[in-house]
Formats: sequence, structure tokens, C-alpha cells
Amino acid sequence: MASNSFGELFKITTFGESHGECIGVVIDGCPPGFLICEEDIQRKLDLRRPGGNTYISQRNEQDLCQIVSGIFDGKTTGMPITILIKNQNAQSENYYPIKDIYRPGHANFTYLHKYGAFDYRGGGRASARETACRVAAGAVAEKMLDKFQIKVIAYLRSVGSLSVNIEGISKHELTRNKIYSSPVYCPCENVSKAMTALLDDIKEAGDSIGGVVEFIVNNMPIGLGEPVYQKLEAKLAFAMMSIPGSRGFEMGDGFKAVQLKGSESNDQFIKKQNGGITFSTNHSGGVLAGISSGMPLVGRVAFKATPSIFLEQKSYNIHNGEDQVLKLSPSSKHDPCIAIRAVPVVEAMCSLVLSDALMLNAAFRVDR
Amino acid sequence: MASNSFGELFKITTFGESHGECIGVVIDGCPPGFLICEEDIQRKLDLRRPGGNTYISQRNEQDLCQIVSGIFDGKTTGMPITILIKNQNAQSENYYPIKDIYRPGHANFTYLHKYGAFDYRGGGRASARETACRVAAGAVAEKMLDKFQIKVIAYLRSVGSLSVNIEGISKHELTRNKIYSSPVYCPCENVSKAMTALLDDIKEAGDSIGGVVEFIVNNMPIGLGEPVYQKLEAKLAFAMMSIPGSRGFEMGDGFKAVQLKGSESNDQFIKKQNGGITFSTNHSGGVLAGISSGMPLVGRVAFKATPSIFLEQKSYNIHNGEDQVLKLSPSSKHDPCIAIRAVPVVEAMCSLVLSDALMLNAAFRVDR
Amino acid sequence: MASNSFGELFKITTFGESHGECIGVVIDGCPPGFLICEEDIQRKLDLRRPGGNTYISQRNEQDLCQIVSGIFDGKTTGMPITILIKNQNAQSENYYPIKDIYRPGHANFTYLHKYGAFDYRGGGRASARETACRVAAGAVAEKMLDKFQIKVIAYLRSVGSLSVNIEGISKHELTRNKIYSSPVYCPCENVSKAMTALLDDIKEAGDSIGGVVEFIVNNMPIGLGEPVYQKLEAKLAFAMMSIPGSRGFEMGDGFKAVQLKGSESNDQFIKKQNGGITFSTNHSGGVLAGISSGMPLVGRVAFKATPSIFLEQKSYNIHNGEDQVLKLSPSSKHDPCIAIRAVPVVEAMCSLVLSDALMLNAAFRVDR
Amino acid sequence: MASNSFGELFKITTFGESHGECIGVVIDGCPPGFLICEEDIQRKLDLRRPGGNTYISQRNEQDLCQIVSGIFDGKTTGMPITILIKNQNAQSENYYPIKDIYRPGHANFTYLHKYGAFDYRGGGRASARETACRVAAGAVAEKMLDKFQIKVIAYLRSVGSLSVNIEGISKHELTRNKIYSSPVYCPCENVSKAMTALLDDIKEAGDSIGGVVEFIVNNMPIGLGEPVYQKLEAKLAFAMMSIPGSRGFEMGDGFKAVQLKGSESNDQFIKKQNGGITFSTNHSGGVLAGISSGMPLVGRVAFKATPSIFLEQKSYNIHNGEDQVLKLSPSSKHDPCIAIRAVPVVEAMCSLVLSDALMLNAAFRVDR
Repeated sequence: MASNSFGELFKITTFGESHGECIGVVIDGCPPGFLICEEDIQRKLDLRRPGGNTYISQRNEQDLCQIVSGIFDGKTTGMPITILIKNQNAQSENYYPIKDIYRPGHANFTYLHKYGAFDYRGGGRASARETACRVAAGAVAEKMLDKFQIKVIAYLRSVGSLSVNIEGISKHELTRNKIYSSPVYCPCENVSKAMTALLDDIKEAGDSIGGVVEFIVNNMPIGLGEPVYQKLEAKLAFAMMSIPGSRGFEMGDGFKAVQLKGSESNDQFIKKQNGGITFSTNHSGGVLAGISSGMPLVGRVAFKATPSIFLEQKSYNIHNGEDQVLKLSPSSKHDPCIAIRAVPVVEAMCSLVLSDALMLNAAFRVDR
Repeated sequence: MASNSFGELFKITTFGESHGECIGVVIDGCPPGFLICEEDIQRKLDLRRPGGNTYISQRNEQDLCQIVSGIFDGKTTGMPITILIKNQNAQSENYYPIKDIYRPGHANFTYLHKYGAFDYRGGGRASARETACRVAAGAVAEKMLDKFQIKVIAYLRSVGSLSVNIEGISKHELTRNKIYSSPVYCPCENVSKAMTALLDDIKEAGDSIGGVVEFIVNNMPIGLGEPVYQKLEAKLAFAMMSIPGSRGFEMGDGFKAVQLKGSESNDQFIKKQNGGITFSTNHSGGVLAGISSGMPLVGRVAFKATPSIFLEQKSYNIHNGEDQVLKLSPSSKHDPCIAIRAVPVVEAMCSLVLSDALMLNAAFRVDR
Repeated sequence: MASNSFGELFKITTFGESHGECIGVVIDGCPPGFLICEEDIQRKLDLRRPGGNTYISQRNEQDLCQIVSGIFDGKTTGMPITILIKNQNAQSENYYPIKDIYRPGHANFTYLHKYGAFDYRGGGRASARETACRVAAGAVAEKMLDKFQIKVIAYLRSVGSLSVNIEGISKHELTRNKIYSSPVYCPCENVSKAMTALLDDIKEAGDSIGGVVEFIVNNMPIGLGEPVYQKLEAKLAFAMMSIPGSRGFEMGDGFKAVQLKGSESNDQFIKKQNGGITFSTNHSGGVLAGISSGMPLVGRVAFKATPSIFLEQKSYNIHNGEDQVLKLSPSSKHDPCIAIRAVPVVEAMCSLVLSDALMLNAAFRVDR
Repeated sequence: MASNSFGELFKITTFGESHGECIGVVIDGCPPGFLICEEDIQRKLDLRRPGGNTYISQRNEQDLCQIVSGIFDGKTTGMPITILIKNQNAQSENYYPIKDIYRPGHANFTYLHKYGAFDYRGGGRASARETACRVAAGAVAEKMLDKFQIKVIAYLRSVGSLSVNIEGISKHELTRNKIYSSPVYCPCENVSKAMTALLDDIKEAGDSIGGVVEFIVNNMPIGLGEPVYQKLEAKLAFAMMSIPGSRGFEMGDGFKAVQLKGSESNDQFIKKQNGGITFSTNHSGGVLAGISSGMPLVGRVAFKATPSIFLEQKSYNIHNGEDQVLKLSPSSKHDPCIAIRAVPVVEAMCSLVLSDALMLNAAFRVDR
């Protein structure tokens, strides 16, 4: 119910505004005994942080994380882990000129109606800055996945109409190293180049564009997820659709499954070399009836274009309803494509969903 | 956490297996004073029930509902409302021949691994029969929406590659009457005919096909949904991706938003005749930053083809792993396209999400 | 949040009014593989059911339970278990003469204010009849405790100022057999006789009296309960104070601990014969800092006198506020001391709390 | 489920160890528009903080609070409010000599068994220091209660066998000012003096003693609390039994109700001067069937003696099980009676429960 919390057993609660003192996250429910240090978290944060590269917002935040609770002698203790990230480059004055204008595609219209107030400085709580906390928490969740050898990756699959042909990339090349060495977090060098060219044009025009992030989870155990309402795909959908700017989610064949016949989309069984049973295809994206099938989880998240653009937009004053033109100052710093920075966020949300699912699954195996 | 419950304040818990004694739902949290009777619920159930028409499973269930608690003098009392639906046409013997075979696209593989047991009779709890309970609960939720004049509709937008051009349908024609008078729950007569022709062929071939259901909610108040993790679109995604066979979810422009620039996908503000501010377009599908904007909610759910087909499929014995051919007997009765019956289910899930959101919103207005 | 649910992982939801069609419970989260049948549940229900003996309400209900979901081949499947209990001896006409009068000590005053309606027939949902559902669910929970050899017992410790000197009873005599062979569920024969004599007088006078139920849990593992807010004693307090008529709860020395010095109330450590460490006393009642210490859980619940008495009480009409005398007809049937029937209910709530705690503890041991 | 969170709609999550960097609380769900500043919170913290007076632990913590999120222009925004309290006088070295010894009455035995690790420095997360966060959150919750004129007070009712005769104190004297002007937070001057004399002796002897805190809530609306499992008294019991050192909880007559007959303990109705109906007595402590009756809420919490005493106690080494004597150094600083500092904590927990209940109640009045 608490709208700033995510997860049931491995639960995070995030707080803090874009231009406040700090942002942060409390992770409640992490089992004891995992080795974790600030560097583990910082490495992840650096992938998401603004100012990291040309295609990511130029706000120059170091996003230095500080663990202030829950770790003793370098290990998790079972107590809540709190990570704080100070806001250092918050230039609130940039927001004064536009503080009284409804901003297209932004939170201020709905927040003002709902709450009667809005922290206009950098979008307050509605800012994508909140996702840094998800990434920090995801780094902790990944410690649990490591124990089960579960491997989560995500990458930028499309920008506008440019798309990676993922079937053309060998599984060995689809690594985090490869992905994060691209400025747009895309593992295919040619497509990566085309994307950067497109983004240069978009940026130059003061505009922005949408993108698709794909996630793939290898070494999945069979049995994660719960029947009926807590299906693994439903939890992933919930997680991904909570990321700012997301507009769609799909698993496996997703919307393309609509055009397939049952005889085409049913994943057929085959024998594994060791004698077990598995599947010859993965149309379902690694879930069957809400429960992981042992095949890789595969899903995609669609992101709309960044709503902050540098073109003139017609709007209205929030107090008196008078016509007003919205034009962001060039000193405002925004991403031409939010889907890029969303890559580590999608990874983090995936890790959080799976940690929670692992713990829930363990609970139901209490007597085994 | 309880995996058979949905919602926080307006909460449902469903139970019962496809071929057990009965299925049912407990609705906990419904405010007092709403008029409701079994006929209100029955009318909805009749739209979903098998045997209703040629394109919906031929199992001949009357799906007669019985309210056994929570109503006094014809009104809700604030106490849990329980609705039971007896299983009458459960022909479990149809399932004996296939009870020991892994079924492609079905729950038995994952349930057997997770639980060590599976109620093979009609799919047990994993059966789409559970969705009758969602529809019954949705009928109650709709009583609350009625008080706020919120109108939810859903319809079959696509089957395979056949799609309605919804822009070509006037808003006045997009009514439940119109939709439910089509055998495939599609408001466009021409497309409806094409769909039935396609489905006749698919059925004849013993195969099945996917579909897309679109939902539209008119008269939405501004302010439903909560920031960060309990975004309205995230809750809708969670709700829809819990429906059996769903593979994707999108809001507003959805996956098409990826190809739009910010200057194209930002919904611009306009003045209403009464002086208020609203939007000239609805790319966002009625939500901004997780909160309803007052524009119609618009979203889509992709369904894969029914996994039960009447063609031979290669499989394995669950006990000894030996090769086994799966061939459903023609007396088994299945839908050629589950998306059709999903129409009232999508409607119901939408109503449940909105009832919950209304109550949560009221909680935060405690002092107003 | 759902006010008719209890527990997090092993979760029950109860429904049904005292004089409605039936009452029932859905148990969601029970692990698969436990053998359970209706007789296991019936045996427990028979201890609580009205009409069982002279000191328990004479409403003649058989309380026959029927399992309608969640069991397959005699075992739990991991799916929701639903148990229905039909209401057979509901004589609603007894309530007509008093339906418009505020009843001292009863729910109708507060329910009418909160909900604007009240099912006066037997107290509707506020009736102690709801506790039959707790007992049924407790019988299922006990199946899990059995796997861990955890033994829960409860007994009537006091009625009015008559109390068992529990220290005088050998541990071997404190068995369920012994307890339930007493008409007042008290293991000490002399006290039991004194209690029945007192209750005969109270009943004769048309009055009622309070009582204390003590619970003891043997073979407790170390480590159940969670720090800070989900302490085992807090969960037990929540569970017990939700039983109708409860007025107080205490663990270990309870209110008597107030008068002890730290040097007296600290349980000192001793070595076990097998080399482990345990405690020489159990002032704390088996919990330390919210977590079970391995010593027996010991706690007590205070129950007020049954509010339904057969003496004249001055009251008011709920519609017009006019003076009205409340006098229950001798044909109304009520317990002289609700604490007696509360014994199996306290046992059940204890089992429910512990099942939940076992599962939660298992979740945090996911990697061990 | 998250064991460091409390509340459903007005939800707090606390974090931080006694001797870590800081402790803190995130309040998620506070409605927008309440004026709140650090001074409001500090005033409350000062009542609980160690070093405040002779009878409260001499650890010299300023407990300076800092609001780092959720407030904009001096008002709550509806976003999570985070309050940090730095640890300044954490003298961890005091704990080195005893870090390997099981401490009677302390968390280390159970935490070590459950988690395999324990932050021995000041008790880590099990320290009563965590209650400062509850007090800070309670100060925010009280802002909501203020809007409804609900007034919460608590005071020290007993120490050892010394008790206030509360009936002898006029309602006008039972004020926070009066209470907090006593060094032991007891409103009766004579008893206060006797208590301080007793505590001086106890302290001198290196020992400690138990106490009872009573809470009273005036101006209660009718209708707070929910039926069956979320009864107001059950939530209060849960809240109070989560406070470190609590051993018992009771409402109204509590354990004394056991000795009363129904004809004595039923609160009879009377007419109010304005024509409404209320009660002539308050045996029930302001709740009927789990829902507030409009009478003052009255309850009591029993606290055991502080387990940290300065006398020799026999114990064992946690690593090798060898005999070891535990003797706290006189430089360790502990309260002779934790019930004193518990007074503002009980007040805070009460405010938190009621804020949550107010919001939940508002949710169910969504259409009114």
C-alpha cells in the first residue's frame, strides 16, 4: 500500500526529492551473511548516473552512495540496509522560471491536482532521479541472485525505429561488459553507432525519442512465481511499469504472440542430455502459468520519449490558467532518450523481483 | 503476498479448482450501502461463461452464482461478500488419458516442479475457469464506479493479424451493448465477421490463435494512482498480466510510443470550455506520472493462442520421462481464441484496480 | 489491510454471518503435501461448537465442515483451502424483538455508527460464531506444526477469582486429553469442579462472568519472530486481542513482571546436558527481543464476561433514541463464560501465528 | 511483512543501529498539507532522549533530528518524510569486553541463533534507541490527530508495586505539561516522589525494576478500527507489544474484567445532553467489537525491568560455551526503569495506530 515501497519479503522503500538534501533507500528483509560494500553499489550507480556520457543527462551528479545501516563486519546482518545518496548538483534556480507552468508529459499537472502542492525543483519525487535508489537496492538484491548463479542482463534493444537483431548476436557476446562499453548500452556495435548518430540529430533538434529495453535472465531455477495473482510475469510487469516513462511491457513473444497459432506458439518439450525435460523453444519467455519454467526469462519494456524537450510548447499558468509558453532553458540538462539510463534500472527491478520470488518460494518449502 | 488475493483496500481472494466442488470469491473491503443482487453478477458471468457461443469453450456450465455472505436487506454491509459458483459440468474423466503427460503451454510442468502435485482435472487452479470469480467480483466493484460515473468498457481489438480500426468507430457506437452483441465481442461488424470466419478455419484445423483486448475508461477523475511504485499503469499491468494467457500490456501509445519524438508524444494542454485545463491528445492513455490525468484510460492486453489444441504434440511422461504423444480428444472443449472470453475479464480487472484506487485516494483525503 | 484476513504467508480470510447461509474460511499459503481430511478439522470444531456442553451456548449447531477446495488425493496442493460450515440452527426470529435496541457490550452501537447498517440476526459478523473458522484454519496450521513437533495447548486458567495453580500440575498431566475432558477445559479436577459450581450459580442468576485462558507451546525452535515490529509476542498479542471479548494479553510473567527487579526477572543461562545453552527460568515466556528463545511460549488472554445476560438492562431505540428496556428472552442461548469456548480458539490463533512465523523464518534462510 | 515497518496507510519504516552512523525513519503515506518542522519533532524526542534526567540512561545523546525529505515550503507534500538522527555519543568500546558473552534478558542469544551475527555495539538494532524513531514519527502522526482534535496522553502509572490512584486525579490535572514536569513522567506529585525514592535505591543497588504505562485518548470519534482481525484493540496490542521490554497489554478493565460479572462490566447507555447516546461507564476502554465507541480509549502496557543491571550474572561464551561472568562496567549507562522513557513511545505508537485507523476509515467512506 505504501506507494514508495516495492517487494514483499525483500522489500525496498525509497525516499527523497531530486533537489532535496538526499535521496535514499531502505532495504528491509535482506537475509544475513551477504558480503556487500559501497563499491559494489557505486559501480552500478555509475552506469545510471547523470553526467556519465553524452547521451545521459548532463546534470553532474557523482551519486556517491553511503551505507548507513544494516552492514556489520562487511556483511548484511538481516537488519534494514539504508543507502543514502547526497544531492550535490541540484540547481533549483533553473526551475524557477517554469515553476508555475503545467509541463506537457510531466507530473506537475497530476500531482498538483492530487496533492495541492508540487516540489517543482527538478520534479521532486517524480524525477527519474528516484531510480538511482532502485539501482542501489538492485545491487544488494544481486548478491542473493549470485548465490543461485542467476544472471540478469538488460540492454537497449531499440531507439525510435532502429532495432538490434538480437538473434544475430551470439550468447557469448551478450554480456554486461559488452553492453556497458557502448555509450547507448547496446551490445551490437553497428546498431550502437546508428543509434548514437540518431540521438545526435535528435539532441541537436532539441527533441527526444523513445526506446525499448530488453532483459534476459539466465540460469533460472524452475518454480519461481506464484499462481493466479502473483504470477512472475505480473510482478515483472508491475515492476517495469513503475519505471518513469514506461508505456508497455511484454514477455517472450509478447504482442507478436497475437499473430501466432497455438501450434506455433506452444513451446514443445525436449529431453536434456542429463535426462531431464526442458523446452525446445522459448515463446513464453521463461514462464508457464506464472511460474518460471527454467528457460531464460525474456521480456521487454517500452519507454516513451523524454517529455523534457527544448522546443517551445504552449501551456497554461497553474494559478490563473493564463496562456503561457514553456521553453526550457538550454542550461537545463535532460536525456535525449530515457531508455538508455533505464537499462540498469530494468536490471535492478528484475533483480528485486527475483530476490523476492526466491524468498517467497523458500517460505513455501518450509518443511522440505 | 497471498497469491490468490488481489487489491489492497478493495480486496478479493479467489479459490476453487476447475473440477472441484465449486469456485468462489471473497470480496473484503467493499464499502456498505451498495445495492447488489445475484442477477447483477449473473449478467456479467453469462458473458464469460463457457458454452455461451460457438467461439467460447463448449463446456456447458451455467455458472450460477450464489451470494452467501455480506449482503443484508439487498445491500452491502461492509462485511466480506462471498460468491460461490458450483461446478456442474466437470467431466474429469476427459482428463484421465492425459493426466501423466506434460502439456505444452500448460501449468502442469511448472506446478509439478513447484508443488510436487497437480490437480490435472481441467487444470485445477490454473484453469481459466478461475476468471469467473474475477468477473463476479468485478460486478461488485462496478457498483462503486457507478457512484462516480466511471465507465469501463473492453472489446476484442485483434485476432491474429485482423484488427479493428478503432478510430473509425464513433464513440457513440463503442458501447457494451454493441460489443457484447458480437459473437467475438468486437464492436465493428465487418471486422467481427472476418474474425468469426478466421476462427471457424482455426477451429476446423484443431488449432487456436492469439488476440488483443483493449480497455477504455471514460469519466475518469483526476488523481487516481499513487506515485513511484503504485502507479496506476503499474497496477493495471499487474492486474492484466495475471490473466491466464496474457503476454503483453501497454498504455496509450504503448510500444508505438517508442518511435515517436517527445514533440510528438507529449500531450499538449488545452482549455476546456468551462475554463479548466485538459489535454488535446491522449498519447499517454490517461495517466501522467502514475496518476490519472482525467483523460480516458486506454490500454491493451495481448493474449497468446490457447495452448490446448487438437493436433498431435510430442511430449513426455511426467513419471518416467518416456516419450509420449499428446492428443486431446475431440470431446475436450476449448476456445479457439481465449482473448474473446478475456474481454469481460479485462473489464473486471480494470474495475477492481479502479475501486481500490478510489478508496486509497479517499484515505489520503482523510482531512478534506 | 483486509480486515477479515489474518497472517502474511500462511493467510486466512474468514467470511459469513452468524445467521446467514454459511460461514467459512479460505486458507491461502498452506504448503503442499500435508495430509488433511474433514475429520481432522471436525474434531477441533466439536470442541468449540455451541451445544457441546452445559457451559457452552445451547444453540444446537453441528458445525459440520466441508472442504471445497485445495485438497487433492487427500493432501494439500499449495492452492487455497476453503472450508465451509453451514448454519443450520439459526433462529433469527429470536432477534426480532431486540433488533432496534442498542445492546450493552455489543457490536450494534459501533457497527451502526460505522456502517449505517447491522445484521442483527445473531450478531451477524460480530458474532463469536466467526471463531469456528479460526478453529478450522488452526487445524490445518497444526499440520505444519506437527512436522516440527511443535505442541500447542491452551486451557481455562481462571473464572472470576477462581484460578488454577498451574505450578501444582505436573507437565505430564497438562495434556489436551486431560484439558478437554473437563466441561470447562480446565486440567485441574478440583478447580474444574469449583468452576462448574460457580458457573451454575452465575447461569441461574441470568448473569455471566470473565475468565483467563493460558497457552503453552512446547518444543519451540529458536528463532521464530522478527525484530522490531513483527516480534513474536506482538503478533500473538494481535492475534489474541482479535478474539471477541478479549481484554488483555500477557507473555511470561506479564503484568507481574512489573514488580520484579532485573536481578529477579532476567532468565539466567544454563548448560544443557547435550552441551547447548538454555535458560534456567522462563520469566520471559519463551521470547527474547521478539524472537523465540527455545523455551516454551507461555502467555495468557483475559476475557470479559459475556455481554449477553438475561437481566433487564436500560437502553435506547436505535431509530428514535427513546428509552427502551432490553431483556433477552430465556429462549436465547448464550454462554455464561465465553472464556471456555475461547480455549480452542486461543489454541488455533497460536497455531496460525506460529505457522506464519515458520514460513517467514524459512524465507530468510533462502540460501541456507 | 517487512519487520521494520509499522502501519498500513500511514506507514513507518525505521532503520539504523544504536552505534551506527545514524538511526532514522521513513514515513510513507502522510497526507499533504500538514505544517511540520524539526522543532515539532525535537520537542518530542527530548522527552525520550537519554541523558534527559537522572532516571533515564546517561548516554549523552542530543538526538538532533533532521528532516531530509517530504517537506516543501514547511508542509507535508504527500511524499515520504524521512527523519535522520545522528548517533553522536556511541561509545562502542564499552561493549568490547562483553561482546562474546550471552547477556541475560538481551537480544544477543536469539539474534545470534537466528542470523548468525549480532551487532553487539549497544545492542545494534535491538536497542531501545530505535524507539526514538517511533517518537519522531509519532510527532508527525499527531499533526493528523490535531485536525480531528484527538488528544493522546500517556503517563507512568506504576513502578514496582507503587501505583498512581488515577481516579484521585482530576481530568484537568492529567495533562502533558503536568506529566512531563515530573522526572518520572507521573502526574501525581506524591507518587512521583515515592517513585524517585524507590528508583534511587534500585539504581544504587545496581538493579532495575518494572513499570506500567497507561495511555488515554480523549475526543475519540466513533467508528475507528475494523471488524474481526483489524480490531482497534488488536492493533494497539500489536503496537505496544512491539516496544522493547513490554510484557503485557490491556484495554479498559483489562485483566480485572475477569472478575466482573456481565451485569457489572457491560457499559450501560445514557443520553447525552445534546440528545445523542453515549455510555455511563467505560469498562471497555473505549472500544466495542473492535471499533471505537466514542468514549476515551484507555489501556495499559506492562514493562519488565531493564535487563541491563550492574550485578554479576553467570553466563557463557558465545563461541566456545565456556562459563563466563557478565558484569557491566559502571561506565555503561542504563535506565533503572525503562517504563519511564516508554511514556512518549507509548504516546507515539498510539498516535501512529490512530492515524492509520483514521485513513482506513476514510477509505471506506469513499462515496460519502
